[in-house]
Parts: sequence; structure tokens; C-alpha cells
Amino acid sequence: MVERITSLQNPRIKQLVKLRDRRPRDEAGVFLVEGYREIRRALEKGVALTELYVSPEWFLGENEPALIDQARAAGAQVFELGKETFAKVAYRERPDGLLAVAPQWRLTLAELALPAAPFLLVVEAIEKPGNLGTILRSADAAGCDAVIVCDPVTDIFNPNVVRASTGVLFSVPLVVAGSADVLAWLRSKLIRTVATTPAAQTLYTTADLRGSLAVVMGSEQYGLSEFWLKHADLTVRIPMAGQADSLNVAMATIITLFEAVRQRG
Amino acid sequence: MVERITSLQNPRIKQLVKLRDRRPRDEAGVFLVEGYREIRRALEKGVALTELYVSPEWFLGENEPALIDQARAAGAQVFELGKETFAKVAYRERPDGLLAVAPQWRLTLAELALPAAPFLLVVEAIEKPGNLGTILRSADAAGCDAVIVCDPVTDIFNPNVVRASTGVLFSVPLVVAGSADVLAWLRSKLIRTVATTPAAQTLYTTADLRGSLAVVMGSEQYGLSEFWLKHADLTVRIPMAGQADSLNVAMATIITLFEAVRQRG
Repeated sequence: MVERITSLQNPRIKQLVKLRDRRPRDEAGVFLVEGYREIRRALEKGVALTELYVSPEWFLGENEPALIDQARAAGAQVFELGKETFAKVAYRERPDGLLAVAPQWRLTLAELALPAAPFLLVVEAIEKPGNLGTILRSADAAGCDAVIVCDPVTDIFNPNVVRASTGVLFSVPLVVAGSADVLAWLRSKLIRTVATTPAAQTLYTTADLRGSLAVVMGSEQYGLSEFWLKHADLTVRIPMAGQADSLNVAMATIITLFEAVRQRG
Repeated sequence: MVERITSLQNPRIKQLVKLRDRRPRDEAGVFLVEGYREIRRALEKGVALTELYVSPEWFLGENEPALIDQARAAGAQVFELGKETFAKVAYRERPDGLLAVAPQWRLTLAELALPAAPFLLVVEAIEKPGNLGTILRSADAAGCDAVIVCDPVTDIFNPNVVRASTGVLFSVPLVVAGSADVLAWLRSKLIRTVATTPAAQTLYTTADLRGSLAVVMGSEQYGLSEFWLKHADLTVRIPMAGQADSLNVAMATIITLFEAVRQRG
């Protein structure tokens, strides 16, 4: 039933380690999903995991066998690894004995199914996978209809995005596209763009964030690009009481999204 | 001028490594401050750094010599380490060649200087240093007059708190105390307590967050304790659209604090 792998020289093990890097991920069209919560979310969303590597000596709870059965029923091949072998393939410092391989996907702007007054988040050129993952969590909690990543620096299938998103990557519709295409698409859909920048005059709390809306956030290091500063329908700022750099992009995003939630009722 | 240390056996080097753990920190009454930004903030706030360890081969910019001069002028002993030695004492994976030792301090509730309508943040038993550091940043950005940490699980002088706070630890008044003492003190000052819990009926946006206010947040794993659930003047909830656990305590804190900022004008 379950194939055991004991050698680090096994080609599957070598491939798992390679998948930490983007190029082998993109070439194989797959990515890594590590951890109980993340794998459960993938299965809940019908993601067809191709492989599941398990190491019972690392299990933290009692629900793992049920999850493994569920993955197998959904078509995943299951492999069992010893404790040491699993530690080599695990991305986390404290693994929980569960690592899956999932197919990548590409969603396009044209494929997005939008409600009447869509509530979107557009993020530019985010550099840190942890920030992108946290931003996906925020968008999920705020009920965004989609997240659009413009000109990404980090790969959305980076293991740290999956991890920081706690698996929300599987539930929030996520599109990667160029800024010019995104702006043209937003305009064609009559979706207002509200971009956050410390240089804006308008407070984010006094701007109207109801109706068809795309909140636009800049990158960690450079903030909003000239493109979005010039083309956004409105720029707003978040008041800052303390040190100038106390709010990072993930914090600024959640503040803005939840103000929109408040206004949208 | 600058003493050079080349041996890992040097007692100062051994002590630096020990200071990553709480007990040696508390026994010595000091803690580690690593990184340009964090050390600059400490100096800006008049923290009397006792020692500064520098390793020019790791420097990232050109401002380090000025910072070193400033630390020396403020009384710090400066030591130069080779690249390899510095890597051993650095806490960060990518050090920037600057590591200081600072004295710990203890601020009490009685010592807090409060304005007319204070805006406070109370956090219970936070477990993860990174979350506590992020929460301090949020409190700083929101203009909280103080942060009160009840029954802490993590040490406020943990290197990851210093790091995640980006040095805000030095600017936000921070008190560690027991929950019962904190509640009694808040009541004596006529400060209303508003606690966040998913079980509350009232939305955080419809609660009155003006005037004398203490926002109370629970711990990562257990949420608010029975004590605060029972004794808070009001409990409020943040609406959640997506996965039940999408908001962690740091995210819930920043949302609540910035709604208070909005209401307080």
C-alpha cells in the first residue's frame, strides 16, 4: 500500500529537495505543500495532490491517518519516510511529518469570476514570500474576491508563501499579471483603484472604499511604482504616529482592507 | 581605540552567545541588540549600550562608522571581530556586522506617565517573540501610550522581539505585570477595557473606542483568558470572511488599534 523510501539517493527524494528552488518547480509544474493544515486546505479545495510523503515519527496529533486516506482517495501516491530522511526533505525546522507535491496552476484575469461590486487586492512586486503569504491571509479574512500580484519578485509557489498563507493560497483566487494589463482590465470592468502611499493627502478612512474597488499596495522596499501612483484613481495614506517605518506592507494592507470591510458593511 | 577579538574562546564571545538564552540575560541584566536600525533606535532613545561588537566585513552601507562613533561617545566599549567570529555571535542569518549589549530595564504600572485620555494596549501571555515584536510595531504606529504585557510567556528581551519590533522596543513604554494587577490599575485610572474575542456579539467597529481605553488581546493559542473575558468592560469581535484562523493575534491587534485611531480622530 505505502511505499517506503529509505535512501537519500532515491530520485524522488532528490527531486523533493530540488523543488525548494523555483526553476525546478516551474520545469516540473509542481510545488511543495508542507504541513497538516496546508495539506488539509489543499484537499478541501480539491487540489489534486500527486504525491504525499509521510513520516509518522514526526506526527504531532492523531488526525494524520485520516488525512493520508483522504489524499490517497483523491489520487495521491503515498510514500513513507524514516525520521532522518524526512528531516532532509522537510522545509520547516520543526516538521510535522507531512509533505505533499501539488500541481501549479495559472489563473488569468479573464478567468476571474467577479461578483457585482468586486473587492480586489492588487499588490506590486512583493519581494518577501512571508509578506505575500501574510497578505493572502489578510485578503482571505477580509473577504477579497481575488488577489492580483503584479510583476512579482517572489514566486507565488515559494514554500514560504504557502506556509505564511497557512494554505489560504488554495482558497483565494490569485492572478499574476503585468501592471499595465491589470490596469487596463480594471478599467474595462469599471473597478476603481485606490492606492496607498505615505505621500497621499487623503486619509484612507475618509476615502470612499465601497462599490467596485481594487486596493493597490506597493512593494516593501520601493513602495508604489510611478505607474500606479500616476494611474490610480485615488491615493490614500495611513496616519502614522511612531517611527516612520513601523508599518510594513503586510500591516498597511490589512489596515486598509479592514477599513474597506467596515465601510462596505 | 578598538580592541580586536580573534578567538572564539574569548570570555566576551562566550558571554555573547550565552545571552541568546533568557537565564544568562536576566542574571547579567542585559540583552542583545543586533542590527543597524535597532542599535540606532536604542541610541536615539538614550539607551546606554555597554558594548558594541563590529565586523566591517559584514557592513551593508556607509553609515556604520558614524553609528560606532555615536555609540562610543555614549559610553559603549567597542570591539572589532573578524568575519567568522562575528558570524558565530550574530543571531541573524544575514548579519550586518553590528551587535550591541544593552542594559535591561523594568518599567512599572505606577511609573507610567499617561496623558488625559490614554490609549493602551494590553496583551496576554503572548508566546511567539515575533508576534510580540510585530505587536509593538503596531502599537507604535497607532500611537499607543503604552503596551502592557500580562503574564508573558516570551521574554520581552528575547532577540526575536527586539528584531521583529525593529527597535520600537526602545520607544514604546512597555510594562510587564500580572493580569489582576493590571485590571486593578486600569480600574483605578478609570480606563475602559475592550477585549477582542471571536465569541463576542459586538462588532469592533460599532463599539466606542474613544476616551480612556485599553484594548485587550489574548494569546495565540488560547485567546483571551477567562479572567479578561469576565472582567473586560466590553468584548468585541472582528468579522471574518474566510478561513476561521486567517487572522493571527498580531493581525487582529493592528486591525483593532487602527479602528481606535480612526474613531479617536
